[in-house]
Amino acid sequence: MRDFVPPTASLRRRVAEQILAVYESYGFELIETPALEDLAALLGSGAGENEKLVFKVLRRGARLGAALASGAGQRSETYPLPGATRAAGDQGTGHLADNDLADAGLRFDLTVPLARFVANHFHELPMPFKAAHLAPVWRAERPQRGRYREFTQCDIDIVGEASPAAEVELISAGLDALGALGITGCTVRLNDRRLLRAAVEAHLGPLGDPYPVYVALDKLDKSPPAEVARELSAVAGERAEALMHWASQADLEAAAGLPGVAAEVITGLQTTLSALASAGWSVRFDPALVRGLGYYTGQIFEVSHPDVAYSIAGGGRYDGMTSRFGAEALPMCGLSIGFERVFEMVDPARFRTGRPKVAVLCASEEELVACLVLARQRRAANQGAAYSVVRRARNARKQAGDLERLGYTEVLKGAEFLSQ
Amino acid sequence: MRDFVPPTASLRRRVAEQILAVYESYGFELIETPALEDLAALLGSGAGENEKLVFKVLRRGARLGAALASGAGQRSETYPLPGATRAAGDQGTGHLADNDLADAGLRFDLTVPLARFVANHFHELPMPFKAAHLAPVWRAERPQRGRYREFTQCDIDIVGEASPAAEVELISAGLDALGALGITGCTVRLNDRRLLRAAVEAHLGPLGDPYPVYVALDKLDKSPPAEVARELSAVAGERAEALMHWASQADLEAAAGLPGVAAEVITGLQTTLSALASAGWSVRFDPALVRGLGYYTGQIFEVSHPDVAYSIAGGGRYDGMTSRFGAEALPMCGLSIGFERVFEMVDPARFRTGRPKVAVLCASEEELVACLVLARQRRAANQGAAYSVVRRARNARKQAGDLERLGYTEVLKGAEFLSQ
Repeated sequence: MRDFVPPTASLRRRVAEQILAVYESYGFELIETPALEDLAALLGSGAGENEKLVFKVLRRGARLGAALASGAGQRSETYPLPGATRAAGDQGTGHLADNDLADAGLRFDLTVPLARFVANHFHELPMPFKAAHLAPVWRAERPQRGRYREFTQCDIDIVGEASPAAEVELISAGLDALGALGITGCTVRLNDRRLLRAAVEAHLGPLGDPYPVYVALDKLDKSPPAEVARELSAVAGERAEALMHWASQADLEAAAGLPGVAAEVITGLQTTLSALASAGWSVRFDPALVRGLGYYTGQIFEVSHPDVAYSIAGGGRYDGMTSRFGAEALPMCGLSIGFERVFEMVDPARFRTGRPKVAVLCASEEELVACLVLARQRRAANQGAAYSVVRRARNARKQAGDLERLGYTEVLKGAEFLSQ
Repeated sequence: MRDFVPPTASLRRRVAEQILAVYESYGFELIETPALEDLAALLGSGAGENEKLVFKVLRRGARLGAALASGAGQRSETYPLPGATRAAGDQGTGHLADNDLADAGLRFDLTVPLARFVANHFHELPMPFKAAHLAPVWRAERPQRGRYREFTQCDIDIVGEASPAAEVELISAGLDALGALGITGCTVRLNDRRLLRAAVEAHLGPLGDPYPVYVALDKLDKSPPAEVARELSAVAGERAEALMHWASQADLEAAAGLPGVAAEVITGLQTTLSALASAGWSVRFDPALVRGLGYYTGQIFEVSHPDVAYSIAGGGRYDGMTSRFGAEALPMCGLSIGFERVFEMVDPARFRTGRPKVAVLCASEEELVACLVLARQRRAANQGAAYSVVRRARNARKQAGDLERLGYTEVLKGAEFLSQ
């Protein structure tokens, strides 16, 4: 997890404001949800791998005492087990010691909280509902370049729209938000989980849970083909190679020829592709696109950019997730921008305000107090200008360098300021 | 913990932006710190009562297994103990079961993380350093009106300025930020912990830890005097009444006459009072002002408003907290605005953008896609205007009501929009 020293934190906030301004211009309404969700909700959300990465919050006081007394501590002798945790309340195997001790967790994405939010507030929300959500999420991953245990997601979701018009709008809004940051020339790759499943089953036969195959296939654009082939063979046997070949070259026509693919899956993809292409975006069908999460039910998409190896935004349709939270199963579709990844691509010069920023360096307490009073008058007279009154530092060179780095346009001595 | 449905979340963000804009005009630089801090740092911070309210994050995997195997589970038989947890690593009494199981916690304020931040990044920061920090904090309190387990604090701090010029600037900036929200007519109450301690010891004799007396005295402006007297008598004996009397009526002159009060304490208070009064603010010395936190070392202050019973901002000097994190002991002083409390006082009309917001209601997927393309052109032509394309809802009356509540200035049918 990271701190952000000046001027980075301020720049991050301006970048976030710019993204939200674009989303607002599309009619997405900002929502806020708490960082902590019920652990059972997080672990039963169908998010796959991410569920293993939840930071769990210890029960408190008497409840913790009861959990420990009930034997969670003894059961922990078998901890950690392979397969990890699945759902709160699953007793008897010993692998739930941590869930017994915790009943809340930090959200690992903004999608699960949104579904819970919609279920809780259905009658207070417009329907269809277009939500924007910008907030930190937490995953207990091993930190590596570009991956952090706390990071910010910036999501938009459309709830209650079953047609691909939702996908078209989400992708369009996401690309316009990136464009407003100066990130242009993106490519959108598009697939559909229903098509993916049909392709997998056409090659490997019917599968109870195709998720392990998806996880292996997902690496096709990141790892050497031989490595993917090895991993895929482990879960899919000798027909893995034919599946890989299909995923690397099939077009929409070939996809339409797969057994068990409904016509609406193909026309849906065509609608999204043609609507985005007609707006001038670069978009293509990618039969190998998988997305890591378990909960998708329809179209899935990722946005990539020639300057970086990873995708900078992604999303898909996850119809019905509201039903996990006791509400009607609603059509849902969302797009998430990886804020940190995008932030690294932004040119800070684009976000300079250009407003005057004046430092007033004082030699004494008396001068400080006098300059503070005057600075307040100057701020009132020059709206938007910043006046910072601080004591002159002993290390004048370091102070001058710091002020320059922080974008000060003018540096005055207190006496100069007072006599202006 | 709460969700924020539209349009509240968006209004909250605009209010936060307004506060930060004022702080920026004073030269405070935004910083960001992670939600999770080392548990030992949080529990050893001298924050008093708040340390008991930390949400602790469970260790993971093998480390949790080791903690449980080492006997944390058995020690829990005595959990919960009176007096609660104090510091990680305090062994043998059995009351640390929860700390053995956790090594990180959610921050309960922004002051402790700032001190840790300054210690970690000292050489990257200007000095004196003026920081602004706006972020959620978490406390495991029993929820009650106006108190939440997740809430937002908006802090400014000055690090490296030992004179009351820091107090003057912080209070001035805080009052200007409140003024920018339309919250005027505030009163500032000011005291000094060194004076408070002298007053307590003048009445009760030397005390090892005056904190229990502070906690009792702190209730003087919230509870009936008889109740405070009873509580204070329990910790201070029969001389409690004289102390209460002193605290309820002493002026600065009486304060200056206390044994053991350094002259600089009185002149410091005079500087802050006169500088703020000369700027036109309502400010007074309050010998009964205590503030709930343990870590203050000098001047303390609270901002109140005639419309509400609680204070809406507060702060004080906490020199040297950086030394708890292995760095040089620096002068530090801060002011925190209780964002939720202030937000409830804001008039939403003040934050309306006044920009056009057009809803386009469509009857079919084809119309949606066509309108999405046109809306994008309109947005480009009318910067700042919002165009939201959505499907016409079955319940037209509810949809119309929702759109009005969300501030739409125009509602069109898709066909109308396309033919405009």
